[in-house]
Amino acid sequence: MSFNTFGRVLRFSTWGESHGPAIGAMVDGCPPGLPLSEADIQPFLDKRKPGTSKFTTQRREADAVRILSGVFEAPDGIRRTTGTPISLLIENTDQRSKDYGDVAKAYRPGHADYSYDAKYGFRDYRGGGRSSARETASRVAAGAVARLVIPDVDIFAYVSEIGGDAIDYARFDAGEIDNNPFFCPDPEAAKRWEKLVDDARLDGSSLGAVVECVASGVPAGWGAPLYAKLDGELAAAMMSINAVKGVEIGDGFAAARLRGEQNADPMRPGEDGNPLFLANHAGGIAGGISTGQPIKIRIAFKPTSSILIPVETVTRQGEASEIVTKGRHDPCVGIRGVPVVEAMMALVLADQKLLHRAQCGGEG
Amino acid sequence: MSFNTFGRVLRFSTWGESHGPAIGAMVDGCPPGLPLSEADIQPFLDKRKPGTSKFTTQRREADAVRILSGVFEAPDGIRRTTGTPISLLIENTDQRSKDYGDVAKAYRPGHADYSYDAKYGFRDYRGGGRSSARETASRVAAGAVARLVIPDVDIFAYVSEIGGDAIDYARFDAGEIDNNPFFCPDPEAAKRWEKLVDDARLDGSSLGAVVECVASGVPAGWGAPLYAKLDGELAAAMMSINAVKGVEIGDGFAAARLRGEQNADPMRPGEDGNPLFLANHAGGIAGGISTGQPIKIRIAFKPTSSILIPVETVTRQGEASEIVTKGRHDPCVGIRGVPVVEAMMALVLADQKLLHRAQCGGEG
Amino acid sequence: MSFNTFGRVLRFSTWGESHGPAIGAMVDGCPPGLPLSEADIQPFLDKRKPGTSKFTTQRREADAVRILSGVFEAPDGIRRTTGTPISLLIENTDQRSKDYGDVAKAYRPGHADYSYDAKYGFRDYRGGGRSSARETASRVAAGAVARLVIPDVDIFAYVSEIGGDAIDYARFDAGEIDNNPFFCPDPEAAKRWEKLVDDARLDGSSLGAVVECVASGVPAGWGAPLYAKLDGELAAAMMSINAVKGVEIGDGFAAARLRGEQNADPMRPGEDGNPLFLANHAGGIAGGISTGQPIKIRIAFKPTSSILIPVETVTRQGEASEIVTKGRHDPCVGIRGVPVVEAMMALVLADQKLLHRAQCGGEG
Amino acid sequence: MSFNTFGRVLRFSTWGESHGPAIGAMVDGCPPGLPLSEADIQPFLDKRKPGTSKFTTQRREADAVRILSGVFEAPDGIRRTTGTPISLLIENTDQRSKDYGDVAKAYRPGHADYSYDAKYGFRDYRGGGRSSARETASRVAAGAVARLVIPDVDIFAYVSEIGGDAIDYARFDAGEIDNNPFFCPDPEAAKRWEKLVDDARLDGSSLGAVVECVASGVPAGWGAPLYAKLDGELAAAMMSINAVKGVEIGDGFAAARLRGEQNADPMRPGEDGNPLFLANHAGGIAGGISTGQPIKIRIAFKPTSSILIPVETVTRQGEASEIVTKGRHDPCVGIRGVPVVEAMMALVLADQKLLHRAQCGGEG
Repeated sequence: MSFNTFGRVLRFSTWGESHGPAIGAMVDGCPPGLPLSEADIQPFLDKRKPGTSKFTTQRREADAVRILSGVFEAPDGIRRTTGTPISLLIENTDQRSKDYGDVAKAYRPGHADYSYDAKYGFRDYRGGGRSSARETASRVAAGAVARLVIPDVDIFAYVSEIGGDAIDYARFDAGEIDNNPFFCPDPEAAKRWEKLVDDARLDGSSLGAVVECVASGVPAGWGAPLYAKLDGELAAAMMSINAVKGVEIGDGFAAARLRGEQNADPMRPGEDGNPLFLANHAGGIAGGISTGQPIKIRIAFKPTSSILIPVETVTRQGEASEIVTKGRHDPCVGIRGVPVVEAMMALVLADQKLLHRAQCGGEG
Repeated sequence: MSFNTFGRVLRFSTWGESHGPAIGAMVDGCPPGLPLSEADIQPFLDKRKPGTSKFTTQRREADAVRILSGVFEAPDGIRRTTGTPISLLIENTDQRSKDYGDVAKAYRPGHADYSYDAKYGFRDYRGGGRSSARETASRVAAGAVARLVIPDVDIFAYVSEIGGDAIDYARFDAGEIDNNPFFCPDPEAAKRWEKLVDDARLDGSSLGAVVECVASGVPAGWGAPLYAKLDGELAAAMMSINAVKGVEIGDGFAAARLRGEQNADPMRPGEDGNPLFLANHAGGIAGGISTGQPIKIRIAFKPTSSILIPVETVTRQGEASEIVTKGRHDPCVGIRGVPVVEAMMALVLADQKLLHRAQCGGEG
Repeated sequence: MSFNTFGRVLRFSTWGESHGPAIGAMVDGCPPGLPLSEADIQPFLDKRKPGTSKFTTQRREADAVRILSGVFEAPDGIRRTTGTPISLLIENTDQRSKDYGDVAKAYRPGHADYSYDAKYGFRDYRGGGRSSARETASRVAAGAVARLVIPDVDIFAYVSEIGGDAIDYARFDAGEIDNNPFFCPDPEAAKRWEKLVDDARLDGSSLGAVVECVASGVPAGWGAPLYAKLDGELAAAMMSINAVKGVEIGDGFAAARLRGEQNADPMRPGEDGNPLFLANHAGGIAGGISTGQPIKIRIAFKPTSSILIPVETVTRQGEASEIVTKGRHDPCVGIRGVPVVEAMMALVLADQKLLHRAQCGGEG
Repeated sequence: MSFNTFGRVLRFSTWGESHGPAIGAMVDGCPPGLPLSEADIQPFLDKRKPGTSKFTTQRREADAVRILSGVFEAPDGIRRTTGTPISLLIENTDQRSKDYGDVAKAYRPGHADYSYDAKYGFRDYRGGGRSSARETASRVAAGAVARLVIPDVDIFAYVSEIGGDAIDYARFDAGEIDNNPFFCPDPEAAKRWEKLVDDARLDGSSLGAVVECVASGVPAGWGAPLYAKLDGELAAAMMSINAVKGVEIGDGFAAARLRGEQNADPMRPGEDGNPLFLANHAGGIAGGISTGQPIKIRIAFKPTSSILIPVETVTRQGEASEIVTKGRHDPCVGIRGVPVVEAMMALVLADQKLLHRAQCGGEG
């Protein structure tokens, strides 16, 4: 089955192919009364937008969003969400279908070409069709709406590693993230990455990346045993992003190398009545429920599968072939994954806030 | 909200607390006509059962399963699934509530104690209540049913690392997995782990572990864009297991360190008409859909949070305290995670098989 | 697929066959902190219990419910819901399988015998198996939990018509409902029905009935456009009850015979600030959302399909036959439908209350 | 919560307000490979389109549908469904917002005005906003896609009663349904209704109607116990349509007046190996599962709530007032309900077909 909807009570659905007339999202279950206009969404789309530096694809898309439903002028004169579905539309304006001609005939390794054909019998091969990273623009638009639902939560993501070259956490400066084309909090790493990514690009190759995301301001109590655990929902959300191959909560795999007493997050009485945690190995989640500490998550993006280096493959007819993916590609798709990761974090948390107040009342 | 149900068309729900009268699972949507009796489920429960070696908790549970509904003698005289819900019941027989008295008053760091209280206002503190790893027996029972739905799929999991000490893949022998108490495919590592785990146990400490799981025989085409991607479903499934903090598909985080051409899984025409893949960095999934290669997943288990080493904490009343978790605990909870990981793999794949044939027909 | 779960955030699942060892329900998503013990559930089961008069089946079932999970002694010493799944078990004690021997071979018209076989290939034929009205005991148990979620809502149902003989609303006395074996609010009708139902019973025949249900105390605002409309949810809930063939909200089919001005429910300013409605043709729901007026619903139960009068049928092998359903049956299954209708009303309203506060906040 | 999605595996979601820029639907889970273009959908929209006679609203809408995603030229050169979400867009072209000015201030009895305000705090009052019958165009578009999934099923609906004046079944002629503006199968009734409806229109009043729908060609075995019963799904589907207040399956309420032997649908061996039913009181469904007989359902539409006759009401500020709904309205909204009922029938059956083959295999 095709399940293009995510979420439980705040739900969003996306539709659209890379080279169709448009893509879009529908956000359902949004609380009423939230001020919302295109201007609340556009900045997030701009952050994800292609073509802003030589380190991302040269496809040019305005990515201008239109709100087609679900908002109306409230009695106070402000356009607000009405509680009905919010339909968001983004037109595709720079589809050069000719770029993708070869792909119709043979399968690009690492892409969804073969698996889609195996499942559906054929596929929209233009620019990757439905499996294109272009779909993530819809998520980013939906995520901008979700942020309005959780105004007290602060979410930011950044790239912590490209091609195996990691940032130095001693130089971590959140203020730097938006100062370079890599969303890198370490200015020295950002400098190194310029050459690293550019070399890969010139080689016709690509690089993987690690993205980290932190959400602070989440109160203790969001999440749900057992199959809607906050970490389970986040893992599903992140793993649904194109090119993601791994997810860690808190210390993740490193926790598997700690002893119990090292991994514990001791508590002391806090001044605000809540526990003061002395560490956060758990990444802000215990038993699937938030602890009040920042939610921390790490996501592995594989290198872009579209490369100019020839790779052995087979054609649709099952003959041996070789393929080179011409066209305009991100040399490191993880970079533009940053706003997408933030959007998915917002969407999961907003949903969990509403779920929490459904069961437990209060303002969640 | 509390969501104790997993799956889309083959769904299972679990209920029960560690020290209540019983735990159980209900499996709904199972195809009719599959031969099923308690004997098909019990071996999997026995594999997960506590108290089988000094490397697991000394709690003694028979973990005897009863099928209360959903099977009936078919016209051929064999008890088969009827297509109606299968209710599985496991009585708790070895609850020593006195062991857990202290836990009522203070929060065990790393446990769900504080987060449950923050969410629900109070909790069943006996043996961890609902957040106890005991719940995973219900999953294992449900997973045994799921395996019947996918008879052509072979699933096995093993421990590849404990406390940072990894197996040597050159010595990998699947036949060894059931020959040691660690589900370890490398007999030399198994020997080292005896001392490693025992030392941790004697120290009152605990160790983390990495579990790997492989499912072969999955045809190309299972899975679904975009929010029911096979990898997304697996990630959610695994992250819902107690103590899991990280999930990798295929190369996972290592893929983030590869270049595009290294990470590609080249294809050649295969003898059976399907592509022959020359590598499996992708772990058998591309675009969220199976490729026909083995599905490969790695899961990080944190060290058991229940330790005899005192940790700073706070009481329910918010006072500073220190806690030691007496009782009977697994020094390395990842070990008994092996059959649970296998069960979740089976449950996800069986669900996806049915979803695939819902949309695309055929026998899936 | 088999979908034995109902609800969106407060969900319940039922399992079990008429003549299996037990039946049960699992209630998930229940708010924490509600006082709950078996004594809160048993009276509702007793109301539905068979064998209490000659007007119902003579099967003897204690219908004693056990709570297996989801409640625990709260700090105030009272057993309360913990927010985790509530597993409810009812053992079957009076299964006389010999009564049902013939049914294995031929299909009873009006029953699910043929349709189950057509779907699943075979069926548990003992006492109707899964399609037996016995399943409704699980709903009644779950409904008792749901009532605790909506303490300000008052729900009552009654039989308004049996075999075409309707009550006189001029004699309607809610206090009479529990004074006769028919849940009849009109004592004169109740008297007539004694002979009516007994005659049908002695004839080996059966009668249909109409049940009406009123829920007052529902605030304006519960429900949701468009596919979770309060009336749509109620219709699904009621139509899921065995033998139900029709559902009306408010005036129902009679509204189709009114003109617009007759059908309007005019409003005046009410003393409490809410509108005072001058009529309730709408049955308390407009646009799928409650108006604050009582929710009114009417449900048609067909006559029990199990009758002693021979009916033409076919065998499993497709041969012509005739069948008489021996055994112990309700001459009018609508009568015992009353507590089931009330339970489904409670389950829908409790779910909608929680959904409302998820989206719109407040205490719902 | 707002739940604007219907279905389980073949799901559709709708969005849009009466006077927003557009309305639309997204269909997800559609099998791949079905030939689909706008021309497959438009005729159904044209049938529902307003302004085609004086018996329907004079609003003029082209109701031209655009397919924005989910179809692509298959290797055979035909545009086919790809298995990914199908986004359908219908622009609103005839919004005269000035017509609806009064409605902003006071609540129209019988409309969703008050209940939406009570739920959401405010509402898009232009033309009824989200609660307008305009939304049903989205359903009709989605329904046209669903019909492609069940090519062997024949669905037709008709009006059997307007304002209490019923057709004579002795004159039933399916060929007449499209020969009059009322979708009436009895030409004499159609003649009477001309005056009946026109009189109501001229009086500024409105009339209710009963719509009947028959689906033949449904094989035995679709549907699912217990909370996805075919009749339960249909009841929910139909009750979700604006102005619907009652639903009957088969004989419906009339069955409540029959004795068991009258209501039985006897079976004889059929020539095709399936049972030959001698009656169809059950409306083609037993135990929630299709029997192979035609599915029969009756739906009650209340009279349009928008009337020119003044009705007492209150303003948003809670003051007494009177309201007259100017604008362009259907004097009998049930008439245009016919294609909507057909669409919902198609959507439910297509979903159930896919669900059946998910669980039971085969081509469903």
